Amino acid sequence: MGIGVFDHPWTSGLFADEAMLDVWSADRTLSYMCAFESSWSRALGVAGLVDAAIAEKAALAIEFASIDMPLLKSGMARDGVPIPSLVHQLKAVTDECAVHVGATSQDVMDTSLVMVLRDTSDLIATRLSLLIEALHNVEKQFGDQALMGRTRMQAATLITVRDRLLSWRLPLESHEDRLVECRTRVERVQIGGASGDRAALGDHAGVIVSHVAKSLNLTSTDKAWHAMRESIVDYASFLSLVTGSLGKLGQDVALMAQQGIDDITVSGCGGSSAMAHKQNPVLAELLITLARFNAVQVSGMHQSLVHEQERSGAAWSLEWMLLPQMAQATGRALSAALELVNNIQSLGHERPGSDKE
Amino acid sequence: MGIGVFDHPWTSGLFADEAMLDVWSADRTLSYMCAFESSWSRALGVAGLVDAAIAEKAALAIEFASIDMPLLKSGMARDGVPIPSLVHQLKAVTDECAVHVGATSQDVMDTSLVMVLRDTSDLIATRLSLLIEALHNVEKQFGDQALMGRTRMQAATLITVRDRLLSWRLPLESHEDRLVECRTRVERVQIGGASGDRAALGDHAGVIVSHVAKSLNLTSTDKAWHAMRESIVDYASFLSLVTGSLGKLGQDVALMAQQGIDDITVSGCGGSSAMAHKQNPVLAELLITLARFNAVQVSGMHQSLVHEQERSGAAWSLEWMLLPQMAQATGRALSAALELVNNIQSLGHERPGSDKE
Amino acid sequence: MGIGVFDHPWTSGLFADEAMLDVWSADRTLSYMCAFESSWSRALGVAGLVDAAIAEKAALAIEFASIDMPLLKSGMARDGVPIPSLVHQLKAVTDECAVHVGATSQDVMDTSLVMVLRDTSDLIATRLSLLIEALHNVEKQFGDQALMGRTRMQAATLITVRDRLLSWRLPLESHEDRLVECRTRVERVQIGGASGDRAALGDHAGVIVSHVAKSLNLTSTDKAWHAMRESIVDYASFLSLVTGSLGKLGQDVALMAQQGIDDITVSGCGGSSAMAHKQNPVLAELLITLARFNAVQVSGMHQSLVHEQERSGAAWSLEWMLLPQMAQATGRALSAALELVNNIQSLGHERPGSDKE
Amino acid sequence: MGIGVFDHPWTSGLFADEAMLDVWSADRTLSYMCAFESSWSRALGVAGLVDAAIAEKAALAIEFASIDMPLLKSGMARDGVPIPSLVHQLKAVTDECAVHVGATSQDVMDTSLVMVLRDTSDLIATRLSLLIEALHNVEKQFGDQALMGRTRMQAATLITVRDRLLSWRLPLESHEDRLVECRTRVERVQIGGASGDRAALGDHAGVIVSHVAKSLNLTSTDKAWHAMRESIVDYASFLSLVTGSLGKLGQDVALMAQQGIDDITVSGCGGSSAMAHKQNPVLAELLITLARFNAVQVSGMHQSLVHEQERSGAAWSLEWMLLPQMAQATGRALSAALELVNNIQSLGHERPGSDKE
Repeated sequence: MGIGVFDHPWTSGLFADEAMLDVWSADRTLSYMCAFESSWSRALGVAGLVDAAIAEKAALAIEFASIDMPLLKSGMARDGVPIPSLVHQLKAVTDECAVHVGATSQDVMDTSLVMVLRDTSDLIATRLSLLIEALHNVEKQFGDQALMGRTRMQAATLITVRDRLLSWRLPLESHEDRLVECRTRVERVQIGGASGDRAALGDHAGVIVSHVAKSLNLTSTDKAWHAMRESIVDYASFLSLVTGSLGKLGQDVALMAQQGIDDITVSGCGGSSAMAHKQNPVLAELLITLARFNAVQVSGMHQSLVHEQERSGAAWSLEWMLLPQMAQATGRALSAALELVNNIQSLGHERPGSDKE
Repeated sequence: MGIGVFDHPWTSGLFADEAMLDVWSADRTLSYMCAFESSWSRALGVAGLVDAAIAEKAALAIEFASIDMPLLKSGMARDGVPIPSLVHQLKAVTDECAVHVGATSQDVMDTSLVMVLRDTSDLIATRLSLLIEALHNVEKQFGDQALMGRTRMQAATLITVRDRLLSWRLPLESHEDRLVECRTRVERVQIGGASGDRAALGDHAGVIVSHVAKSLNLTSTDKAWHAMRESIVDYASFLSLVTGSLGKLGQDVALMAQQGIDDITVSGCGGSSAMAHKQNPVLAELLITLARFNAVQVSGMHQSLVHEQERSGAAWSLEWMLLPQMAQATGRALSAALELVNNIQSLGHERPGSDKE
Repeated sequence: MGIGVFDHPWTSGLFADEAMLDVWSADRTLSYMCAFESSWSRALGVAGLVDAAIAEKAALAIEFASIDMPLLKSGMARDGVPIPSLVHQLKAVTDECAVHVGATSQDVMDTSLVMVLRDTSDLIATRLSLLIEALHNVEKQFGDQALMGRTRMQAATLITVRDRLLSWRLPLESHEDRLVECRTRVERVQIGGASGDRAALGDHAGVIVSHVAKSLNLTSTDKAWHAMRESIVDYASFLSLVTGSLGKLGQDVALMAQQGIDDITVSGCGGSSAMAHKQNPVLAELLITLARFNAVQVSGMHQSLVHEQERSGAAWSLEWMLLPQMAQATGRALSAALELVNNIQSLGHERPGSDKE
Repeated sequence: MGIGVFDHPWTSGLFADEAMLDVWSADRTLSYMCAFESSWSRALGVAGLVDAAIAEKAALAIEFASIDMPLLKSGMARDGVPIPSLVHQLKAVTDECAVHVGATSQDVMDTSLVMVLRDTSDLIATRLSLLIEALHNVEKQFGDQALMGRTRMQAATLITVRDRLLSWRLPLESHEDRLVECRTRVERVQIGGASGDRAALGDHAGVIVSHVAKSLNLTSTDKAWHAMRESIVDYASFLSLVTGSLGKLGQDVALMAQQGIDDITVSGCGGSSAMAHKQNPVLAELLITLARFNAVQVSGMHQSLVHEQERSGAAWSLEWMLLPQMAQATGRALSAALELVNNIQSLGHERPGSDKE
């Protein structure tokens, strides 16, 4: 029931990836926000800032709290972030002194974002691996076939299908390495408090940060990264690299599927309302679209690096508008590519003279 | 229940504009698609291609048809557009010969888009007018106050509040003119048939096009604009000009609201989860965010001008990903600006020596 | 001897358009800056702020002044704009009291920009007209030939070459109209003084503005547009619309020129260092590249609308980085398209059965 | 004498970084192209494809060849790349059989690009290191001073200058790590021949690739990356991350330098042509501009990932338009930041009560 292509009543049929939608669902984000808050309550106990029993009681209450989303929405309208409303709701179900004390909105939102990104990365890693395997299979089947190599869209010299396939697969393998590097810089707890200096935590900052990090299975940090967004933006660049590489695959397939070229046959193509005979390479085109979409969005993520002072409402909000959709586009590009590659029925042509006996 | 900020369960509290959401709702788009199809059926009758009574019966059946959205969604997944499924559903409720014959998916989708853009333009026109009026009111109240003019963020010379306000209002007035110009190029019926040449309509093309155009209150065209997207992209540029001008307003307000500058007081500011004393200029920042968002998206719309041959699935789909959100951002920027301007409590300072007697 | 493609020692061979380079040459800009300053001096005389003879002497001295560009460069390094250095040099050759008094850097830079944009528009208008004529000629020659219409890159139904050609020509005709509309909003004198309020001119503002506007043949304005950049950004959008439409033409030609499709023959194609037989559609690809380039840059122009207070050094400088190159890309796209269209040797195919007797 | 800001006669005063201009000069690129060709000639000898003495003679002739740049330019105009003309010139000075045989234009251009990027990386690494050191020095001097922490542009709580400085320095340290990772993927030889499959080299491919790689001190590769551009695009993203982080620094300084805020004093600020008293934070604004510039360009680099088939003239050319300028912007941002940081005269305020005795 949304406006965007990822959750529009019918457009989502083409653009939505259910698994990635699930990763970025409001429910999951909310559960991670509450996981932060309950971990925080326990950390206050561990640090001795709150009686341990009260802390534990608060943590449990938070874990079992039923959050009113419409209230979060009206809080968001008022405060620009949902956390003041969330905290208000949590304080209503347990001892106020053990809730959110010393934390700030950004701590909750960024840490839960990072947990969503972790799930995103897991999903991408799995998909990359499946897609690489599928490309290996296509190579086994058709790799030795002949293909007219084309440079500047002109026939150049005969190559093998394998040559073309390598230009699809090898970038994906390098993205697997990039993902590992990116993740280590992204999956860090965010804790800074009001102005990001952890001042409200005093000498207890170390204990609290390391407790929360450990319990959420994130890396600890010496300093809040409230206003240092390069890891998030780097992650966005990574997403766009993935969709860009898949866009090349899609563009190649769309070109190969032209009548007159006839280098590929793919099953499961789309129909036309006007021409019953047509077999439209919908998934191949979708890969191009998603690549161009992310290549556009990545610009805004880089713009958001100009993040003034200790917290920029303007730059931070821009991330919220862009990053979730980049993740959706990446998830969908991976599932579409997988489907497309698995639907390949033929690729290339018999090598000239190969069967002569 | 969406992923995007415009329909996310809580983020929409800040980003959603209900009126603009309504304009772009799936229900409205579907009703416009059906309006095209029923008008088309009648046009077939007018042109004598179908018996007039059968045509009228089909038109009525289409108007009263209950469309199954999940079927549209699965059709979209298969065909890359929802129209084959829509047509299939419509044909099930009336005589096939009077449904969609000679039309193509893009005719339906682009014409309904244009009708949505017409409503968008109406809403923008109303909002621009209200905002201009609100700025006039602020000028009446505070225009003569003094303000430190600032160039390159440095104090320059004293100006009046009016001078600053004019830099907010005059661009909006020029946008009113631009909107009028844009609309005449956008609000045109799209009719081309399979390859955009109206060949299936033969000699009846003129009658059909003019009937459909007239009944939908759109401009007729001599040629389908399937692959000529410049008017749509120009419209997107217009949207981004509007949000850009409002972004300047927002940036100015955020700077004026700084403690130490104190050039403005605005009521209704947002709260912090960590600092009860804070009054965050949430709406001002939102205007900056929305300006930067549209400035990003507009790039993708311009990329989609590279629309190959008679129809590019890839470039066309990119429009679907970008334009609805640009309209949402513009609607929200206008409502947020209106709220912000109406919330201004004080602006500028007493002019030096102005009251001394 | 530049780094950018438009003036790189060899890359410019492909990317440079000599006429557009000339329009944006430093010499021409400098001559327009001096034209502003001499007009300003005379206006000071007309307004009675300076003795008319002294004003005329200053105006003449400015017109004949020999400006030291390296000094402008070091001034630019220091001040962020070249005008303080320019004014310093001008004051050295005539009476200081008649030079630049009441004006500011931005007045000089924006007015000279507008004069450069006027020349840009003249060149574009001429080129659009020539290109439209060339497309008419191609249509006369090949319009009735048959072409396989292609939607989603798949063969759809037979169309005529005329149908394809119209999708190239009609957008250009609409751009002619857009250019007329844009120009009226761009070709306005910029006069504001220090903080843009013309305060230093007092009651003489009207006389001075109208004298300068008239003598430079620009529209007068009631208010400086220092911080209202929408007309400039709208112009940039126009440039990108033009290159986008030409990018579609280039993409179509590149696709039509594929072996196996063979819908077009173009003379003068490029060679390969490795394959003597190849005929690369270099100009067609160039059109795609320039379209995508401008579609990227236009985003930055829209970002620069967030122009804080009375003058944003940051946002204004961003225009300097982007707009000149967008104009170059547009000039080159038009000349490349003209060359490409004029080089068309054949287009489409004999209509099936057309010669049967 | 260029159009772009990096080599414009006076605008370059602000935007040019001499060291980075030198890295990207045509002379250096040409010398690297010739280095590739001479290495290639020797490799042909090593592989036994050409008599070793002839190969050595050719290599030496290439190293001492005087290349006519205007001929490269006219070749570029004709062929879309300068290499056919370069090869033609080289063949004129030595035995044709030992020149470029089995290589293609893209091999030469991409390998020389990679060598330029290596120099770029060296320069960036040096600058990052100097800047980090300069920030350490500022921290030593002013780190303990008090600063009003600001979130959403509103006064939040007192922090130390150190807290703000860390948000400038830590991202730069992470960029040092990223650069190391990027370089290993970029500094690879490009060898593919006509269609990128090294077919013309037959069994000698391994020997030739490893000879050329070793002699140019680049990594060898198993497969040409003609159509796999992700490493280049990743590098562009890296450049934009660097400028983005410096843009944050610049935005902070511009905000801190406002009268009324007065958190910083910087020497060497720019003057105004209208107001002698003004001290404009030109370098701080420049950092913002360069950040936004690169954030725009990075989008085009990601668009160029959609690189069809074995070589896309359109997508590849887009890189040429964008990447050199992104490198210039990065070089200049680093030198400007260094100058700005070294010019800091005061930062923050005495801590409340810190001197009370």
